Amino acid sequence: MPDLDVVRLLTAKRDGARLSPEDVTALVAAYTSGDVPDYQMAAFLMAAFIRGLDESESAAYTRAMLHSGEVLDLSDLPGTKVDKHSTGGVGDKVSLLLAPLVAACGVPVPMISGRGLGHTGGTLDKLESIPGFRTDLDIDAYRRQLDEIGVVMIGQTAEIAPADKKLYALRDVTGTVESIPLIAASIMSKKLAEGIDALVLDVKAGKGAFMKSTTEARRLAEALVGIGEEFGKPTVALLTRMDAPLGRAVGNGPETAEAIRALHGDAPLGGEIDDMLEVTLALAGEMIALGNEASGADEGRRIAEAAVRDGFAWGVMREMVEAQGGDVAVMDDPSLLHGEPVATVEAPQAASAGFVTAIDAFEVGLAAVALGAGRARKEDDVDPKAGYVLLKKPGEAVEPGEPLAHIYASRPEQANPERLLAAFAFGESAPAPEPMILDRLDASGWRG
Amino acid sequence: MPDLDVVRLLTAKRDGARLSPEDVTALVAAYTSGDVPDYQMAAFLMAAFIRGLDESESAAYTRAMLHSGEVLDLSDLPGTKVDKHSTGGVGDKVSLLLAPLVAACGVPVPMISGRGLGHTGGTLDKLESIPGFRTDLDIDAYRRQLDEIGVVMIGQTAEIAPADKKLYALRDVTGTVESIPLIAASIMSKKLAEGIDALVLDVKAGKGAFMKSTTEARRLAEALVGIGEEFGKPTVALLTRMDAPLGRAVGNGPETAEAIRALHGDAPLGGEIDDMLEVTLALAGEMIALGNEASGADEGRRIAEAAVRDGFAWGVMREMVEAQGGDVAVMDDPSLLHGEPVATVEAPQAASAGFVTAIDAFEVGLAAVALGAGRARKEDDVDPKAGYVLLKKPGEAVEPGEPLAHIYASRPEQANPERLLAAFAFGESAPAPEPMILDRLDASGWRG
Repeated sequence: MPDLDVVRLLTAKRDGARLSPEDVTALVAAYTSGDVPDYQMAAFLMAAFIRGLDESESAAYTRAMLHSGEVLDLSDLPGTKVDKHSTGGVGDKVSLLLAPLVAACGVPVPMISGRGLGHTGGTLDKLESIPGFRTDLDIDAYRRQLDEIGVVMIGQTAEIAPADKKLYALRDVTGTVESIPLIAASIMSKKLAEGIDALVLDVKAGKGAFMKSTTEARRLAEALVGIGEEFGKPTVALLTRMDAPLGRAVGNGPETAEAIRALHGDAPLGGEIDDMLEVTLALAGEMIALGNEASGADEGRRIAEAAVRDGFAWGVMREMVEAQGGDVAVMDDPSLLHGEPVATVEAPQAASAGFVTAIDAFEVGLAAVALGAGRARKEDDVDPKAGYVLLKKPGEAVEPGEPLAHIYASRPEQANPERLLAAFAFGESAPAPEPMILDRLDASGWRG
Repeated sequence: MPDLDVVRLLTAKRDGARLSPEDVTALVAAYTSGDVPDYQMAAFLMAAFIRGLDESESAAYTRAMLHSGEVLDLSDLPGTKVDKHSTGGVGDKVSLLLAPLVAACGVPVPMISGRGLGHTGGTLDKLESIPGFRTDLDIDAYRRQLDEIGVVMIGQTAEIAPADKKLYALRDVTGTVESIPLIAASIMSKKLAEGIDALVLDVKAGKGAFMKSTTEARRLAEALVGIGEEFGKPTVALLTRMDAPLGRAVGNGPETAEAIRALHGDAPLGGEIDDMLEVTLALAGEMIALGNEASGADEGRRIAEAAVRDGFAWGVMREMVEAQGGDVAVMDDPSLLHGEPVATVEAPQAASAGFVTAIDAFEVGLAAVALGAGRARKEDDVDPKAGYVLLKKPGEAVEPGEPLAHIYASRPEQANPERLLAAFAFGESAPAPEPMILDRLDASGWRG
């Protein structure tokens, strides 16, 4: 690197200085091209982790990753393209419902998703639990389907932000993953490359989230919205609770089945709206408003509720499954996705009658990985049927010996009821209900 | 590395935790053996740079580097073996005088030195300005000469602390050089591998030193003495001034010539003792006391002065030069080492009569490198004759046009009198004389 003095940048960041956008961009570009070796970038990542990156550095870092690959241009397609990203949770099948639902309301959703990571699931793995469903469409097919159906859900291609892939692999082995500016830049570089016009973020806080504290989650939301605004893309973040698994299903097939059932009107939309649908409708309201199909998020939510109730959203999901090669039989019989339970977890006999007070989402997530629903290592295969359906959720009454959850798995000998049971907590009274949507952030600040 | 979770160590150090000695040792050992890649070690070095290493971590890090190679055992040789290390300065030829001088006083000196670095010279380069002088003795020859003459001066062998060499190369390209615990561990691992019983350190502070501030130099001295004591080796550090070049010669041949002349009694030992001899005698006093040939440093210094005055020290240096294959003619005619001046720097005509108030050692060091006395890059050759002799030092009166310095060089076209002149400052009155020895540290603390 005759023109880039890497050691100067390293010592400056090391000592807490702010780097110029040009320097940050040049460094990331040189790393991507192989001109800067792993060991220098590793030192930079550690210095950036400890010293932080300010808004201008984060934007430059994001920009460099974004422009390391193809940046899709969907501007010739009609409509305001809006996507959603979740920071990841347990039982978080929201994307599966949300993308077709928002498309059904007239807002095109071009969604590029990832695989399961650690204790959390990934949208791609969930989609691929549908036999035949292809997530590896090329860019032409992606554009065509978005134009025809209004929604397309694929995996990251090699052309999108290759620098992010290379940098993430390096962060993974150098103890530099959990950095808010680095996480924010990684998320936003991929989302901005999709060709979107606006973005809604589901930033999760709690036991089952990557950010355990709401303080951390708020900082991440601010970093994400800050970058979105820097790039001129209206961005809204909802801060949502992730202490217990979202909904009742955990695991790829069971979650996809739950999503299909919810869009089919099997969820009690007429009466009580569960935590999963609550988060889905809140995000849908924001997306529909950003997509200019509603005057605000409240109106957007009402439009979304109607699209669930009258089956439009389910119909769009069916079109999408068919277009991407999936077996549409699962739309009518979601139980094909998980089969019969192989075991049932029961409330301990010793426990007196009472309530489920908590279900630790992190422990459930780890148990699901052990069951085969996730990957302990990147190269592992997942069992699409493996997972749980929680028959009792926090706040619900339970008798000794009553069933708490069903376990699904292709290999019944993998069933681990004791491990799942350990994630439950019981008590004599029901915990006070807490809101799922903790706060909302846009360019004008927190709703508070 | 099945047994070492490197990412756990990286995240712990990143977050400011203290690592166990076992973890630090295992990490350095695994890096040395190639089981931990450069990029993980680079991340560790950056985290250690920013978060620091405490005494126990520094000792473990030093121990791992020490035991990465051969640790010499000189315990079968008589006497208490004492060495000296300098943190590096400009015109610092002290080792050349000191090693034979202390040996002449009955204390064996096994010295393993390095080459010039940045703006500072290196003892090896100075020794090699003597035609034929070999610094690459093997360990057997090293032991034999120490036994026979009481002093031996060689370069670092591949067997001594190979981890330090590998780690230094990585620090050099990752912006992690100037870390006090990493510097201290690097120095001490090499010195402890020599087979010494005690150590004296010349920790320099000022413009021409690596530590510009005395605060930094004090911290380095404390780290060095702390490690020495951890390893059960009595260690004394002198904090010495390095604002102007030490003595009058700068450059390998000129400095070696100055050292020989000083031991030959050409230095004014009967009257004024210059800065170079002041530092040499102070260090010699400490070494002779640590070597149990004097009851304290003051008595040691008096013994050393006598060994210079009566020519014993010069005689030991001559024996050493002969034993290591050097041309002993230089002992009688040191001017062979530099030849005739190729240029002279004169005081500006414009300046009114006055005094030299300062000579910036850092600028002189850089000018000497440019002249050929040092290496801009590791692979450069040095010109053994290249250098300066300062005819005026700070505090000395000067007339306009009066000679300030001679320049020596194998290639006269390299002479750069303007550059050297720029390092001089002049004034109407002489600066107040300042002590060369700023403070003294041993296990019981600073003299203050």
